[in-house]
Amino acid sequence: MATANRNPEIRKDAVNNRLVILSPARSRRPSDFKSKTQAKSDSNPSSNAQPQCPFCAGNEHQCAPEIFRTPEDSTSDWNVRVIENLYPALSRDPEVKSEGEEYVHANSASGEVSLGGFGFHDVIIESPVHSVHLPDLSPSGVAVVLLAYKKRIEQLCAIDSISYVQVFKNHGASAGASMSHSHSQILALPVIPSTASTRLNSMKEYHDQTGKCVLCNIRTNKLLIDESTHFISISPFASTFAFETWIVPRYHSSHYHELDEDKAADLGGLLKLTLQKLSIQLNDPPYNFMIHTSPLQVTSSQLPYTHWYIQIVPQLSTIGGFEMGTGCYINPVFPEDAAKILREVEVP
Amino acid sequence: MATANRNPEIRKDAVNNRLVILSPARSRRPSDFKSKTQAKSDSNPSSNAQPQCPFCAGNEHQCAPEIFRTPEDSTSDWNVRVIENLYPALSRDPEVKSEGEEYVHANSASGEVSLGGFGFHDVIIESPVHSVHLPDLSPSGVAVVLLAYKKRIEQLCAIDSISYVQVFKNHGASAGASMSHSHSQILALPVIPSTASTRLNSMKEYHDQTGKCVLCNIRTNKLLIDESTHFISISPFASTFAFETWIVPRYHSSHYHELDEDKAADLGGLLKLTLQKLSIQLNDPPYNFMIHTSPLQVTSSQLPYTHWYIQIVPQLSTIGGFEMGTGCYINPVFPEDAAKILREVEVP
Ligand SMILES: Nc1ncnc2c1ncn2[C@@H]1O[C@H](COP(=O)(O)OP(=O)(O)O[C@H]2O[C@H](CO)[C@@H](O)[C@H](O)[C@H]2O)[C@@H](O)[C@H]1O
Ligand SMILES: Nc1ncnc2c1ncn2[C@@H]1O[C@H](COP(=O)(O)OP(=O)(O)O[C@H]2O[C@H](CO)[C@@H](O)[C@H](O)[C@H]2O)[C@@H](O)[C@H]1O
Repeated sequence: MATANRNPEIRKDAVNNRLVILSPARSRRPSDFKSKTQAKSDSNPSSNAQPQCPFCAGNEHQCAPEIFRTPEDSTSDWNVRVIENLYPALSRDPEVKSEGEEYVHANSASGEVSLGGFGFHDVIIESPVHSVHLPDLSPSGVAVVLLAYKKRIEQLCAIDSISYVQVFKNHGASAGASMSHSHSQILALPVIPSTASTRLNSMKEYHDQTGKCVLCNIRTNKLLIDESTHFISISPFASTFAFETWIVPRYHSSHYHELDEDKAADLGGLLKLTLQKLSIQLNDPPYNFMIHTSPLQVTSSQLPYTHWYIQIVPQLSTIGGFEMGTGCYINPVFPEDAAKILREVEVP
Repeated sequence: MATANRNPEIRKDAVNNRLVILSPARSRRPSDFKSKTQAKSDSNPSSNAQPQCPFCAGNEHQCAPEIFRTPEDSTSDWNVRVIENLYPALSRDPEVKSEGEEYVHANSASGEVSLGGFGFHDVIIESPVHSVHLPDLSPSGVAVVLLAYKKRIEQLCAIDSISYVQVFKNHGASAGASMSHSHSQILALPVIPSTASTRLNSMKEYHDQTGKCVLCNIRTNKLLIDESTHFISISPFASTFAFETWIVPRYHSSHYHELDEDKAADLGGLLKLTLQKLSIQLNDPPYNFMIHTSPLQVTSSQLPYTHWYIQIVPQLSTIGGFEMGTGCYINPVFPEDAAKILREVEVP
């Protein structure tokens, strides 16, 4: 890319208040380890897992209990299943005890917190067929998955002590996935995680200064990739990862679960297109996506400045001690360049 | 481990104000991808890199310019070399221009920031011999490396516009390393990164409430691993990673570079021991360590509550969309259990 001659630059966006170092020169450094792309059998499981895969149609009995399926009334065929995670990070028991609590109580000014690990951890199986991945579905097939997230979030909203719901997808081993069958996850937490509260503060600050919602007003000049009736896809101004892409609603909306069927169909098309473009341009990379929504109990004064979006991150490199230490990432690809490249990718 | 039956728990420490979910059940989940440990040729480079390795003695001319070496007056033999990074993330030119600046100026209320990427990015070569890793050195050999960090930080302190210095080490490809020859890095930044400012606020809050420094007062009950004259090694109360270990000075000190020769020799021994224990227990895992120090320009009112420490993180799993989305990590090993295990590891 002609861009390797650009100067390094430090950027911070107004949404997450997160620093990034953009540094094209970094992409030229050599490695004496086997390259990740060579070594990875990343999107392909070690064996043809179909017969033993618990997420495949026919193996439903190998899974933790089902929460619902679509279509809802079907007893055999299904498109999407929402199930409990068999190895949940949190316990569905609201009375779950914490052992750390006694230490913290013994030292009440310690500043430490320990809570029982109450919460919900679900898996969304996106297709009954092992080899069908999310972008292989039709736009309306993707919309079925998006509406399953919505429905499950609405159920979780009904539980008082749940403060935040994180929807995310891991695709490929280098993006953390342990299962190759297409799926995503939902974790419902009794606390608001730090990224969500930082984002809230940052969005409030922008609104205080400008009277506007930062995401309604987001920069698209040179950073726009595609647009649909209700959504845009962009490279964010302070992309923390090479080819990081956001899908942002063009209408103002605090919570993902406000999505209606019409908008889900539209989003299904744009999400499919975006994942296809990343797959073509970057050779089926491992990736994660995260839905960044607002805490469930936002007040009416917070509604004007909270706006949900989807962050898609291809995993092209391994982070190191600098990122772990500082929280600041080094990204070798300027977002202006990533946007231009992705705008021009032709999807057959 | 007997601990897999513990309930999940949510913890937050008083140092970083960072949430973690402790969830032993997670360690039992299956994977249909090739396992990372099987696949990894992680600590071993793809070829015997010695002849082409620029960090080996004899290949100094393949490296970016040297800043200094120890012993200082040696023209041939050396123990440690501090050199410029040949592919630096930041530019040594204080006048470096940013392209994003013009966008930001065109939209001054945008909340965005864009700075020229000024800063320093150095490499510390820890040994002239390719096969000698940091814990293979003697305690005083490790101290030579620790004192090289100190000396380089002191040089960087003299540059007005540098606000923060991050020392870190990547060992093994899964910890981000691109070079297998034992080395660490120093990045000097013109801004204070978010983790450092969050830590500062968190330490201040503890001090405001208790009148004490949080790290002088840190919990060691059940969490202590080892101690030396001037340092302790512990599993932190809210460990974000399995077997995460901190080395904390027992004396109050805001900045790493206050380390004197005596304390460096003592720290050299404890750091060596800790890395050896992690290597024995976890089978030479990839790892990172980060020195968390205070911003260079702390005020005298901040001195009483700022305290540096070293964070060591073995990289045993790949993070996923939940951690990227929330900033909250899922750790399958309770720190009480990790501390007990590491306390008992026998080093030959
Ligand atoms: N029969 C069955 N029935 C129901 N559920 C089943 C099941 N068999 C397996 N599961 C669950 O299915 C999920 C598959 O999830 P992913 O492949 O996206 O990654 P995983 O959660 O393992 O870890 C990645 O994502 C998490 C969260 O980001 C990170 O903590 C971690 O490091 C990273 O590897 C697992 O959570 C597993 O517990
Ligand atoms: N001949 C030479 N002379 C001088 N320097 C030379 C050189 N040849 C190579 N180098 C430099 O040596 C360094 C070796 O560093 P590491 O192996 O610790 O990881 P690296 O910085 O590549 O990236 C890891 O760490 C960074 C920071 O955490 C992450 O951004 C990244 O994703 C992760 O892979 C590289 O920075 C490279 O630029």
